[in-house]
Amino acid sequence: MKFLNSAFESSHKIVVLRWGHRPKRDLRLTTHVALTARALGASGLILSDIEDEKIKATVEKAVKNWGGSFTLEMGVPWKTVVKNWRAKGGVTVHLTAYGENIEKSNVLQRIKDSNSDVLVIVGSQKVPGEFFSKDVSDFNVAVGNQPHSECASLAVFLDRFFNGKELIKTFDNARLMIVPQERGKKIVKIPI
Amino acid sequence: MKFLNSAFESSHKIVVLRWGHRPKRDLRLTTHVALTARALGASGLILSDIEDEKIKATVEKAVKNWGGSFTLEMGVPWKTVVKNWRAKGGVTVHLTAYGENIEKSNVLQRIKDSNSDVLVIVGSQKVPGEFFSKDVSDFNVAVGNQPHSECASLAVFLDRFFNGKELIKTFDNARLMIVPQERGKKIVKIPI
Repeated sequence: MKFLNSAFESSHKIVVLRWGHRPKRDLRLTTHVALTARALGASGLILSDIEDEKIKATVEKAVKNWGGSFTLEMGVPWKTVVKNWRAKGGVTVHLTAYGENIEKSNVLQRIKDSNSDVLVIVGSQKVPGEFFSKDVSDFNVAVGNQPHSECASLAVFLDRFFNGKELIKTFDNARLMIVPQERGKKIVKIPI
Repeated sequence: MKFLNSAFESSHKIVVLRWGHRPKRDLRLTTHVALTARALGASGLILSDIEDEKIKATVEKAVKNWGGSFTLEMGVPWKTVVKNWRAKGGVTVHLTAYGENIEKSNVLQRIKDSNSDVLVIVGSQKVPGEFFSKDVSDFNVAVGNQPHSECASLAVFLDRFFNGKELIKTFDNARLMIVPQERGKKIVKIPI
């Protein structure tokens, strides 16, 4: 068990590889991708090929306030990330509108059946053609075959991979915690 | 039946109300929200209180190329949108990290049981407090009670509301269509 959390027991972890981040243009989208990854059960984000202190600050602040052990790596070349991931026995999933439809095909089941940790690759700009090849992706997965958003695709992929249980995961060492309400906002501050 | 589509038969439609859009700062995120809404089965987007020709151009281009009858309204005051929606018997759902947890609670079932068209409200900036009140929202729904992304929340909400069938919906009058592949990209151009 890699999560010490009874409400969210996943035997396999997911890490998100964000490729093609352009600091100014993509700041907010990559921030949303990172926060989505964390909130929906991924273990970490790798911002490949580039470093961005703003992304780092946002992720660190989220983890400090809201808890959990979400990791961030930056600047590693994407080929190295893929190579290292596979060397440890993990599989790679490229999210793309061109891939196998997650609803129509059995691709999600095949990913689960691989019984491996999953590196989910999400692009920003147009990705290199080799992302679709066996050299990079074990699976090309489409959250619908329409153009939309890597942030949306990632969210649906994680929700389906973890069967919804990621949304009731509790985060260790949180300073802040939302108490769900029908009306209004309720935040509890947890003494350290 | 409001969708003329055998693969995606929903008796109720969803329209997304995007509140708080700031043209420069939110351009890309609102674009992603709009494309996600369209791709994941919503019938339209209302950009309240403001007009943005860039969003309009992107949505129109997506509909022209990829089909469907997704609608865009802009500039209507949000209070008017809510009032009109309710006057026609629709319910309003405010997506917020503070709301009832979509996985833990029965809120999604209650929304479905309302047997009504749904206006999904997603904020950008911090939303006015009244969004949480009965005057505005019939339901406050959290896609997990962690901070993340309105784009991600919308995606998961739509996927769950439509039971995944939105991802295999076909879009009428498309000029372009992706044929899902295990490897590579295949786009078919459809003669008009």
